[in-house]
Amino acid sequence: MGDEPIRVTVWGEGRHEKRDANVAELYPDGMHETIADGIRSQARAEVTVRCATLDSPGQGLPDEVLAGTDVLTWWGHLAHDEVADELVDRVQRQVLAGMGLVVLHSGHWSKIFKRLMGTSCALRWRNGDDRELVWTVDPTHPVAAGVPSPLVIDRQEMYGEFFDIPAPDELVFVSSFSGGEVFRSGCAWRRGRGRVFYFSPGDQDYPVYHHAGVRQVIANAAVWAAPSGPREQTPIAYAAPGWFE
Amino acid sequence: MGDEPIRVTVWGEGRHEKRDANVAELYPDGMHETIADGIRSQARAEVTVRCATLDSPGQGLPDEVLAGTDVLTWWGHLAHDEVADELVDRVQRQVLAGMGLVVLHSGHWSKIFKRLMGTSCALRWRNGDDRELVWTVDPTHPVAAGVPSPLVIDRQEMYGEFFDIPAPDELVFVSSFSGGEVFRSGCAWRRGRGRVFYFSPGDQDYPVYHHAGVRQVIANAAVWAAPSGPREQTPIAYAAPGWFE
Amino acid sequence: MGDEPIRVTVWGEGRHEKRDANVAELYPDGMHETIADGIRSQARAEVTVRCATLDSPGQGLPDEVLAGTDVLTWWGHLAHDEVADELVDRVQRQVLAGMGLVVLHSGHWSKIFKRLMGTSCALRWRNGDDRELVWTVDPTHPVAAGVPSPLVIDRQEMYGEFFDIPAPDELVFVSSFSGGEVFRSGCAWRRGRGRVFYFSPGDQDYPVYHHAGVRQVIANAAVWAAPSGPREQTPIAYAAPGWFE
Amino acid sequence: MGDEPIRVTVWGEGRHEKRDANVAELYPDGMHETIADGIRSQARAEVTVRCATLDSPGQGLPDEVLAGTDVLTWWGHLAHDEVADELVDRVQRQVLAGMGLVVLHSGHWSKIFKRLMGTSCALRWRNGDDRELVWTVDPTHPVAAGVPSPLVIDRQEMYGEFFDIPAPDELVFVSSFSGGEVFRSGCAWRRGRGRVFYFSPGDQDYPVYHHAGVRQVIANAAVWAAPSGPREQTPIAYAAPGWFE
Repeated sequence: MGDEPIRVTVWGEGRHEKRDANVAELYPDGMHETIADGIRSQARAEVTVRCATLDSPGQGLPDEVLAGTDVLTWWGHLAHDEVADELVDRVQRQVLAGMGLVVLHSGHWSKIFKRLMGTSCALRWRNGDDRELVWTVDPTHPVAAGVPSPLVIDRQEMYGEFFDIPAPDELVFVSSFSGGEVFRSGCAWRRGRGRVFYFSPGDQDYPVYHHAGVRQVIANAAVWAAPSGPREQTPIAYAAPGWFE
Repeated sequence: MGDEPIRVTVWGEGRHEKRDANVAELYPDGMHETIADGIRSQARAEVTVRCATLDSPGQGLPDEVLAGTDVLTWWGHLAHDEVADELVDRVQRQVLAGMGLVVLHSGHWSKIFKRLMGTSCALRWRNGDDRELVWTVDPTHPVAAGVPSPLVIDRQEMYGEFFDIPAPDELVFVSSFSGGEVFRSGCAWRRGRGRVFYFSPGDQDYPVYHHAGVRQVIANAAVWAAPSGPREQTPIAYAAPGWFE
Repeated sequence: MGDEPIRVTVWGEGRHEKRDANVAELYPDGMHETIADGIRSQARAEVTVRCATLDSPGQGLPDEVLAGTDVLTWWGHLAHDEVADELVDRVQRQVLAGMGLVVLHSGHWSKIFKRLMGTSCALRWRNGDDRELVWTVDPTHPVAAGVPSPLVIDRQEMYGEFFDIPAPDELVFVSSFSGGEVFRSGCAWRRGRGRVFYFSPGDQDYPVYHHAGVRQVIANAAVWAAPSGPREQTPIAYAAPGWFE
Repeated sequence: MGDEPIRVTVWGEGRHEKRDANVAELYPDGMHETIADGIRSQARAEVTVRCATLDSPGQGLPDEVLAGTDVLTWWGHLAHDEVADELVDRVQRQVLAGMGLVVLHSGHWSKIFKRLMGTSCALRWRNGDDRELVWTVDPTHPVAAGVPSPLVIDRQEMYGEFFDIPAPDELVFVSSFSGGEVFRSGCAWRRGRGRVFYFSPGDQDYPVYHHAGVRQVIANAAVWAAPSGPREQTPIAYAAPGWFE
């Protein structure tokens, strides 16, 4: 993308904030605004960041928004089922053509993540005030740049193994929890011409998206997932006999 | 599965054989019967093999058949769109719970393969009487056991890169074609508790499923893909605080 | 190897047992005999198991022993430097030709493991009576068969990340420790025609090799690492022009 | 490395050029100068490039040169055995601490590549005026940016499978040859904190390093392999009990 800023769209479900007083208190402008602010302030490349939510027109992602998005981040929880299948089709098509996707926390059960993974994306969980430690197992990965190991999150929902995902192309972070569980908390895949990153820390009930280390990881992931060239659908080419003779 | 024979179901679309005289001549009992026969005669473990086709009741795969199948092989071409979405759902659920799946040739564009991969599964192709050479790049892989490198297929449809799949967990075979193209022709993935193998040689217009080496690979893949334990859905467990204290 | 039993050689350094009273008490016949006994009793295939130690003639592994070994297990700690370089050369050559290798615990710093990995194989550690929980992250892997997740080891030395190894071809187990650390405790690689497994639980100061779950993993790893065909050096072939014309 | 230029050192054996008239004619300043020139002119980041050869003092790579090198490229053929073991030790240590390494063509048999891979690095070969086609199988990889697929090399030595390397972390290019062979010609690995790329096209007897596409790949690989932070030896940390309590 050369010297153009990376265009990031932060998609948030935006329902907990309207419904739950404690969430509204932690995230008065919505979790998505807090996430967007973290990317704006900590990205190690030029970025422009906007937000989109489920209750906006076109569920926040009409064609023109997707076409102008280099990297989409996704947070959902209560309303995965309300996301239109045709939107999932369009997001998948954009990822396969090169758009980056960063899936956050409970987004593991979003339609788009399950679509791109092909598995159930189920996991073990417990809401019990665990302390999470996020350890770097690939210190050279761009998403780990400048991130202390371990990153200490004092209170967090527990996500544990077995996490039913395809083996990541690159495993970057592994977490432990007070209860003794472990979790592959930072995972990278390529799908088509697009890059996908999943990062598990983050929950509506805890102030995780205000945590400087968590924000650094998400900002790094947004920069890492940006495509290096223009969007391109994989062609279905017919090569005549004798093409290379 | 211990000492029980591996129960293989060979699914074939079964349409070309009814429509195209040359296919009926090459495969008088249907491609599926030829594939089944290859597995029966060349598997290096005890197997029982049956066939199922699109035009059978329940598209050949009612629940009781799937429940009694350890490994399913899949060949389709003309009628991918006719396969019912609810059947694709059921096959995916069985694979994630442990059933093996071996996808053959034009099956790269089946609904079930695209569902499990999450990508377009598009590729370059040409029907031009190429000679295909299948080279082993992982000689220790069980699917390559007893397979000469290269395996020479005198006449074959060309499938070439870029093949839009997730990076294979294990890359076993790479092919070249007379036209100079290359193709990742033997690829393995894990999805949930199930194993998936894709093998590209095989076409309705060429006698490829009579080729001893091709039959050996498919028989090996069926044995490799067999689950080692009973079918099991990944549970979504709730672990109470203090579980391991 | 068909119906022949898998020939396992358990190599042990055998020094702690002579020097440290507490080790001698935990392992009166030597750690190697305890490890060998676990493989004999819990392997899910026919095996014959013998032991070899550093202080035996030829450091326990003269040519005829290696030639008659399908899978070698390796435990060392105090005396890595005493292992002869020419023995390391010979073991490497056998692994590349197909012999399996299972490296245990402090064997991460053996010459042979560092030789096959190409990295420092350094890790974080602490001897502090941690409880280790070993979680399965690849439930379909043959080395995880019949192993509960988590496997609970009440007292154990801590090994933590960053573990300086090449990214495993297959990551099977991840451990957590009371101190909050995590570790990739079960890792598989292919090197040449041989399979290599590293499994970290096990220490001279704790009775870990008497633990049924640990023994199951090591027995599974020995069976998994066994070659499927005769030993074979990778040839450096000259193929004449026109080979496949 | 932020805005500092990437410091590349192109190491060349430099013997063919002195001995063989045809090589001297193809590469009047030495292959290394042609390689260096390609990186200078086609790198998509700021670089400073210098050359070093076997017959220079300290075999071209005294400590101060290595310390000031972000990425080292390596071409050798006739004199692999003359490279001092202590130099191989020093280069390995620098790679594990973060220095990038790009290994070219016959460098597959260099001591440093075999040291980092742990395998024989043997391959099939033939010097028979083959045409090589280099196909991209990972179009999103930075090393493939701006590289046509296939890249056509009219005359080239054949390198074919089985290539005895660890499975690459990322497979970027696969080649075919006129004789029908295939080869994993562009492979990426991480070793310690350093990145390693192997690219096979290039031979003293053909003008391959004057080929614009080949030069683009090598320039891309040099930029890709550059470390993102300061050199760092993996510490062997002692973490006291209660570290995270």
